Amino acid sequence: MADYQFETRKVIEKIKEYNPRIIGLQFPDGLKIHALKLVRQLEKELEVTVIISADPCYGACDIADTKLENIVDLLIHYGHTPLPLDYKIPVIFVEAYAKIDIIPALRSSLRLLSGYEKIGVATTTQHLHLLDEAIKFLEDHGKRVLSDEGVGTRRGQVLGCNFSSVKKLNVDAYLFIGSGDFHPLGIRLSTGKPVIAADPYTGEAKSIEDFADRILRIRFAAITRAREAEKWGVIMSSKKGQERLSLALNLKQMLEESGREAFIIILEDISPELLVPFRELDAFVVSACPRMPIDDYHLYDRPILTPIELEIALDKRRWEDYTLDEIIF
Amino acid sequence: MADYQFETRKVIEKIKEYNPRIIGLQFPDGLKIHALKLVRQLEKELEVTVIISADPCYGACDIADTKLENIVDLLIHYGHTPLPLDYKIPVIFVEAYAKIDIIPALRSSLRLLSGYEKIGVATTTQHLHLLDEAIKFLEDHGKRVLSDEGVGTRRGQVLGCNFSSVKKLNVDAYLFIGSGDFHPLGIRLSTGKPVIAADPYTGEAKSIEDFADRILRIRFAAITRAREAEKWGVIMSSKKGQERLSLALNLKQMLEESGREAFIIILEDISPELLVPFRELDAFVVSACPRMPIDDYHLYDRPILTPIELEIALDKRRWEDYTLDEIIF
Repeated sequence: MADYQFETRKVIEKIKEYNPRIIGLQFPDGLKIHALKLVRQLEKELEVTVIISADPCYGACDIADTKLENIVDLLIHYGHTPLPLDYKIPVIFVEAYAKIDIIPALRSSLRLLSGYEKIGVATTTQHLHLLDEAIKFLEDHGKRVLSDEGVGTRRGQVLGCNFSSVKKLNVDAYLFIGSGDFHPLGIRLSTGKPVIAADPYTGEAKSIEDFADRILRIRFAAITRAREAEKWGVIMSSKKGQERLSLALNLKQMLEESGREAFIIILEDISPELLVPFRELDAFVVSACPRMPIDDYHLYDRPILTPIELEIALDKRRWEDYTLDEIIF
Repeated sequence: MADYQFETRKVIEKIKEYNPRIIGLQFPDGLKIHALKLVRQLEKELEVTVIISADPCYGACDIADTKLENIVDLLIHYGHTPLPLDYKIPVIFVEAYAKIDIIPALRSSLRLLSGYEKIGVATTTQHLHLLDEAIKFLEDHGKRVLSDEGVGTRRGQVLGCNFSSVKKLNVDAYLFIGSGDFHPLGIRLSTGKPVIAADPYTGEAKSIEDFADRILRIRFAAITRAREAEKWGVIMSSKKGQERLSLALNLKQMLEESGREAFIIILEDISPELLVPFRELDAFVVSACPRMPIDDYHLYDRPILTPIELEIALDKRRWEDYTLDEIIF
């Protein structure tokens, strides 16, 4: 079990500024296991009652402020940096950096980076505090290292739906520091450059190329199947940071103008079970979380596309211009 | 597949009064299969775009007004009668009565009702329009039939969490018209009188006594196991009609005063998977939907009690005073 910096002393001081009676705590799924420990500490040291939000939470797109309005006076949201959204109640964001050494993974990456001189670096929220350490390590090993802020993201930070920090870097290859394949895939597809992924949890590094090839083959197969679909569901989210109503309306219009039927379906958390009543539909396009069609396609027996993939299916975009869907505020 | 009266002509006229650009449709799970047909009709006859809410929906406690605020101009909610709640957007309620003949089931019930003279009748929303027909049938067969309004419910109507319409009737036995065992169980437990359940979908009738005995044994076993529990989760709901914050706070206080630890956990839709991060807890008490501990206990490997059951576990209520939890507005 990875450990995280919950910065509880600092959080307690911040909470005091709001003088709340009831506070809410919200965590991404991986951090929820620490919730009870934090509640004990906060209720012991402050005159507050704590309520833990246990709904799924995948990002800063998904803040429990609306659900907890009129219930808590203040929300502490762990594990994500804020998006430029308006919240119904005060929200304190705590990044919850992982207490893990990234150097072994960086060392593993050196061999894979050997052919490249200029390296762009990127990571996720939980390792952001070690970005400078990573840059220094790479520079000490002869690399020129570049990093940048993105639109709504910090220097070197990528989200599953926002790769703007890496797009404009003039580099030969990218090093992504973190676990999972989705973020390095996004960097690969949005930059077209080689991406090495260094995982601090395993200490290993790998090229994302094979994974990207496999995903692209799966996506192209889904797009090809979807071309035949007559009846479409446009899946939108009621989460504030994924809502994209205009996009959903545009997708419906685009489908109707191409002679298809389109129905907008709104969900809080998207799952195959909740789409069972709509089995008459042949395919889905998702204006909600951009990761969902890529990560969860295997759960669905219908093609489930991103808006960009729909454009390809309807011949409004070329296959060569395939990229990941993003939500940039 | 049962058919329902969606009253689309009347609904269209009502929608026109609001002159909406975008409307939402919300259905309980059993009616969602009719959604696409209704969207086609509404979008054809009105200048509107329709968005279907596909989140789970179990009652009028769970209106999508908050989720659809700033997305739709008007919400049509099918299958439930309104509760006295404030909504963030205009909501039109459509009862969606089932198109099904209740007489065969009533005929089946006569033998089981033969020992009783004064009968109280109750049913759920989808059969409310046939209440008078049911009363007449029973009267024609020599019964004296009583029915009443409840607190927030119509004459003869029971909800899974509101049995107030039957409680004050001076009768020998009750006839419940509808499917499922939960509503007749609730009538049985809140009145102490014999209950016959007549199911229009099968045409059959049965006494609820065996089911009530089985449930009571299960509940008493859960209460007994829960007496040992040291660490408790108080599960509350963010759904407006199930929120009961004061109850959750009281339950936490009651547990703490009895020397237990208690953590309030808030969820939109309660499921065992979402409680996995809190496995340190020994037992749960639910201030959310009163049906949940009774209907879903088999999904959980921890005792999961209603607030009333917790009172029994903590020796604040006698076993003989067991009854179902209710949410009466």
